[in-house]
Amino acid sequence: MTAHGGNIYEVAMKLGVDSSDILDFSANLNPLGYPKLLDDIIENSKKDIINYPDPDYINLTNDIKNYFKSMGTVLSDSNILPGNGATELIFLLIETLKPKKIYLPVPCFSEYEEAAKKNNGKVERIYLNETDGFDIRPDMFKYDRDCANNVIMLCSPNNPTSKIIKLKNMKEILRKASESNIIVILDETFIELTIGNNKNSAISLINEFSNLIIIRAFTKIFSMPGIRLGYVIAVERIIKKLKSRQNTWSINCIASNSGKLLFENAFFEETRKWLENEKDRFFYLLNEIEGIKPYYPESNFILIKILTETTSGILKEKLINEKILIRDASNFDGLDNKYIRLAIKDKRSNDILIEKFKKIFA
Amino acid sequence: MTAHGGNIYEVAMKLGVDSSDILDFSANLNPLGYPKLLDDIIENSKKDIINYPDPDYINLTNDIKNYFKSMGTVLSDSNILPGNGATELIFLLIETLKPKKIYLPVPCFSEYEEAAKKNNGKVERIYLNETDGFDIRPDMFKYDRDCANNVIMLCSPNNPTSKIIKLKNMKEILRKASESNIIVILDETFIELTIGNNKNSAISLINEFSNLIIIRAFTKIFSMPGIRLGYVIAVERIIKKLKSRQNTWSINCIASNSGKLLFENAFFEETRKWLENEKDRFFYLLNEIEGIKPYYPESNFILIKILTETTSGILKEKLINEKILIRDASNFDGLDNKYIRLAIKDKRSNDILIEKFKKIFA
Repeated sequence: MTAHGGNIYEVAMKLGVDSSDILDFSANLNPLGYPKLLDDIIENSKKDIINYPDPDYINLTNDIKNYFKSMGTVLSDSNILPGNGATELIFLLIETLKPKKIYLPVPCFSEYEEAAKKNNGKVERIYLNETDGFDIRPDMFKYDRDCANNVIMLCSPNNPTSKIIKLKNMKEILRKASESNIIVILDETFIELTIGNNKNSAISLINEFSNLIIIRAFTKIFSMPGIRLGYVIAVERIIKKLKSRQNTWSINCIASNSGKLLFENAFFEETRKWLENEKDRFFYLLNEIEGIKPYYPESNFILIKILTETTSGILKEKLINEKILIRDASNFDGLDNKYIRLAIKDKRSNDILIEKFKKIFA
Repeated sequence: MTAHGGNIYEVAMKLGVDSSDILDFSANLNPLGYPKLLDDIIENSKKDIINYPDPDYINLTNDIKNYFKSMGTVLSDSNILPGNGATELIFLLIETLKPKKIYLPVPCFSEYEEAAKKNNGKVERIYLNETDGFDIRPDMFKYDRDCANNVIMLCSPNNPTSKIIKLKNMKEILRKASESNIIVILDETFIELTIGNNKNSAISLINEFSNLIIIRAFTKIFSMPGIRLGYVIAVERIIKKLKSRQNTWSINCIASNSGKLLFENAFFEETRKWLENEKDRFFYLLNEIEGIKPYYPESNFILIKILTETTSGILKEKLINEKILIRDASNFDGLDNKYIRLAIKDKRSNDILIEKFKKIFA
């Protein structure tokens, strides 16, 4: 177990309060909560509890296929593999592809390195530079041909930097990687929480580059980490390999019935409005506070550097006592105890945090 | 994917009917369905959907601990690891223990061999004999000391033979295995569906033998395969190792809130009554049909040998057309296309099957 965004239950227990009393800025989820439709899905799933899940998740796969079709990308069922959240899929991918070397721009989500370690893959870290906005560019990678199956592991928008990889750069990385037989795994679990939504996705390149593997999840956009649902998009050959190694029935009946959420246009629209209102507003308010430096976010979370004497750990503890949970970002490779990550929440919550920060950094 | 007990969705799709229209004798679940309390648990879990599950599943672990305490076995939290159904745990165990050799009495659940293969373990099959009631005895194993970490993989009651391993035999196997540093993995996922319930379990031996690992599940007794919940009981050292390799959050919030089901005494009582009424009645009715030979069941399913010209595959197809699904047991190692497995269901369903069989085998 790595230290992740907030174990809210642990904090609630420590404080002797209910988990719902904690203002959680550590988990970067859609603050709108889950779509109302999920309540109906849960109700309708009760009849499926007494059956083993469909091991091929035919309905769910079909929904995912139609979701991408609606944005102009034609996939077949054999390009799609659902999983128990992105986490299962990250580990399954590395375990199946068994890359000798994994090129990893850092800071990034810690599970990538965990998965590499577990499968004896050598990690080559590429340290992103805050002075050029943590940009991920094609010239950063070596594209070695020394092993048969090296992997470049990317995340867009990247966690914790909240920066989108430009499509032009993405295409160039894919082209160069392709020439050297390098597979590119691209984690897009936050892509639907960017201004522009799927327009920022590399999904349009999936049929052009057979070395592209995209990870998606229902977790962040639909705020449903408690249900566990993610999926992989890739060429049939890779999906087949993954499926043969995946545990049978790892997706529960509610998750497997959740595909219809992808067509909740009103929910996506409401999410867009919130993000357009709060992302920049919260950033500029944070930016006005002396003693911290927020990096401009392109998704629903903000990386922040502490400029005063205090540390991420001290700040986190101080806020826990006020029933506010933030993400101490010191354990991200390439960062240190001067960094924190904040989820962008609803206006009211964001304003509460701004007031707390103003007092702390006064 | 191995051929398992019924993919009911596939059959329903093929017939163009709803899955609830299929009489499913292929999945050996409690025919009482899931306890009503699960509906309340689902309702109360809605507030947890927006949070990541507690990675330590503290409440669930505590419930499991108290369940065993109520039958006189004292465990600590560090002896318990919940998982995404028994399936995740079987694969996690073999992947973590990495046994060179796995002694496997067959016929048995096919996932054991799948897990061994996936992790390059050599399987030594021990063929059980129908003439002595598929009995599993201590003298069947070799207890080699040739490798550091060999495993004896057992299932009680065994699937598909429906026979309980006698506690006296179990103790002797554990003793001999212990002397040779062999770990015994015991799958007890059906134990609560035996007459005598936990009295047939080896759980009382867990604090005596550090080489004993027990797998349990909520799936069969609470008829909730759609939710995904199982757990392992073992010494702390093994649980720690397993946990360090397990995917984070593989248990969803409904599953992790389901521990209270273990204290539904009225449900256990109703289950006992049904099993006492139907197990022997169904067996004797099947036994009267010429052309088949049922083996006396000690759990909620019956292994049957076909004595006529027909095969398990033909019989299965014939019944599918009548919207009845049975388990073709021909792909169990040690069996062939003369064997089927039937779940014991409610009286009405069982009687329907008896009438069909009478016609087919007339």
